[in-house]
Amino acid sequence: MAVYTDIADTALEHFLEGYPLGRALSFKGIAEGVENSNYLLETERGRFILTLYERRVRAADLPYFLALMEWLARQGFPSARPVARRDGAALGELAGRPAAIITFLPGLAATRPTLPQQRAAGEGLAWLHLAAESFPERRANDLGQSSWAALAAPLAGAADLLEPGLGRAMANDLAVIAAAWPRALPRGVIHADWFPDNVFFRGAAFAGAIDFYFAADDALAYDLGVALNAWAFTAEGRYDSAAAAELVAGYESRRPLSAEERRALPLLARGAALRFFLTRLADWGARREGALVRPKDPLEYAARLSFHRSGGLKL
Amino acid sequence: MAVYTDIADTALEHFLEGYPLGRALSFKGIAEGVENSNYLLETERGRFILTLYERRVRAADLPYFLALMEWLARQGFPSARPVARRDGAALGELAGRPAAIITFLPGLAATRPTLPQQRAAGEGLAWLHLAAESFPERRANDLGQSSWAALAAPLAGAADLLEPGLGRAMANDLAVIAAAWPRALPRGVIHADWFPDNVFFRGAAFAGAIDFYFAADDALAYDLGVALNAWAFTAEGRYDSAAAAELVAGYESRRPLSAEERRALPLLARGAALRFFLTRLADWGARREGALVRPKDPLEYAARLSFHRSGGLKL
Repeated sequence: MAVYTDIADTALEHFLEGYPLGRALSFKGIAEGVENSNYLLETERGRFILTLYERRVRAADLPYFLALMEWLARQGFPSARPVARRDGAALGELAGRPAAIITFLPGLAATRPTLPQQRAAGEGLAWLHLAAESFPERRANDLGQSSWAALAAPLAGAADLLEPGLGRAMANDLAVIAAAWPRALPRGVIHADWFPDNVFFRGAAFAGAIDFYFAADDALAYDLGVALNAWAFTAEGRYDSAAAAELVAGYESRRPLSAEERRALPLLARGAALRFFLTRLADWGARREGALVRPKDPLEYAARLSFHRSGGLKL
Repeated sequence: MAVYTDIADTALEHFLEGYPLGRALSFKGIAEGVENSNYLLETERGRFILTLYERRVRAADLPYFLALMEWLARQGFPSARPVARRDGAALGELAGRPAAIITFLPGLAATRPTLPQQRAAGEGLAWLHLAAESFPERRANDLGQSSWAALAAPLAGAADLLEPGLGRAMANDLAVIAAAWPRALPRGVIHADWFPDNVFFRGAAFAGAIDFYFAADDALAYDLGVALNAWAFTAEGRYDSAAAAELVAGYESRRPLSAEERRALPLLARGAALRFFLTRLADWGARREGALVRPKDPLEYAARLSFHRSGGLKL
């Protein structure tokens, strides 16, 4: 959760002149999205989210993300969608940063998902995979398996600082995962960040997803591996096999896994745990004084990694 | 701006059962209010602000603040008002803290107020003073002039750390202000925090005020002194006499100052600068690692204080 940038009202007014949305009636920074600044914007035409793209998200990738959201919404998937500027563009500039206005997606994130919500979260992920099937644009996953060795290289020392011996365990994980990584699973657009704060519900029903700023082409079942780490552990870090079963069952209610995908799932989840451990460790090392964002604890994902290393995930 | 507390969706659901507002449709932490956690809450009945009262605001004072907001709204003043619980109470408990649901007040804060907005801000403050005239409840201003010596006592060292010699200058300010402080000015309910982020506009028109959590009984013109420090200096700290003139003229368009009030205004503004300098200095010393709030810079108000010390304010 983060709001990084103060926006002058005059700058906002000028930015809004590029949109057919009328004047601003209300504008509040919201604690949503780790990488960007988000604001709830109410205009004479309704409610919207204004997003300023800060670090990490590369400006060159933004048209892909916005086009994907638009595509998904057109396929009937409940995604917020970018509002087009008067000149047709989805992207503008505000406070020196790329900026977009997105429709407001109602729904509540689940801080402690119930079993029906787990099922709905799995179902929503499969729905996303199917809805994006014919999306014509391509984006390589720059945080996919082939990137992890380079990501890990400068972090061995930091890992050992966090917990003695963790650097060596991490190097071993990297090698084991690289050797066994499946190359022939069904691929498509993955969300790549299917965490509870990015999934909205209305009651127990799936109501939509946000934050597509890691979406890319990769193995679809890898996305389910990411989700298993994010959903099937309690706040205390204990594996919840009932939650995992519901998540997978919900997924398969829309898109059944092949035998290969199911067999690969423990390894995919182990790789996903390594990926989030690595980026959290990097963020932890680079945390800034005075920032309004708390880096997420890398130890949470070190524990997931250790769980998978010992073959904990049985589905 | 701050969001301190994560609220579990189950806790929110349970809290909402106490209100006739239906179910939650959307819930987002917002970056508003320095002392409390604020969330934008959308339910089946509309949009609201949910406030969790964190530190500094004393629970015993909350009924006063909420009654004042309700009173002001009934007098036609554009204030958000508390929503009554099914049992009639304005205050509930959530996540172990006192909590209230307040109506949503549309409007935009001005980051760089225009002259017409300065005038409207002054007019709004006078309107507040008049609307609260017959408010029956009393609250002594625990951050009023008589409290400043005790507030300053432990901070001389911190002041000198901030800027050598500042501790002595502060002690001198305290003595000068105490000796000359006017005791017979018209009193009433003051907002006591009339800063640009607490005042909403629609275009150049005053649209309402929020954050009444410092409101108390004190000299009305002191409130204008607080506002002069908050509004009549540029972001770079330069005094803007045109802005000050508009602010005061707007105030007087609704409530003309007496000759005594006008004469006292430079001293009242000097006292107000000291008050905000002292609390910012205390917050600065007590800032917490990992908090999502940036303490406001005490040097900004050290500069205001120095401005008033040299008799800069001429109206």
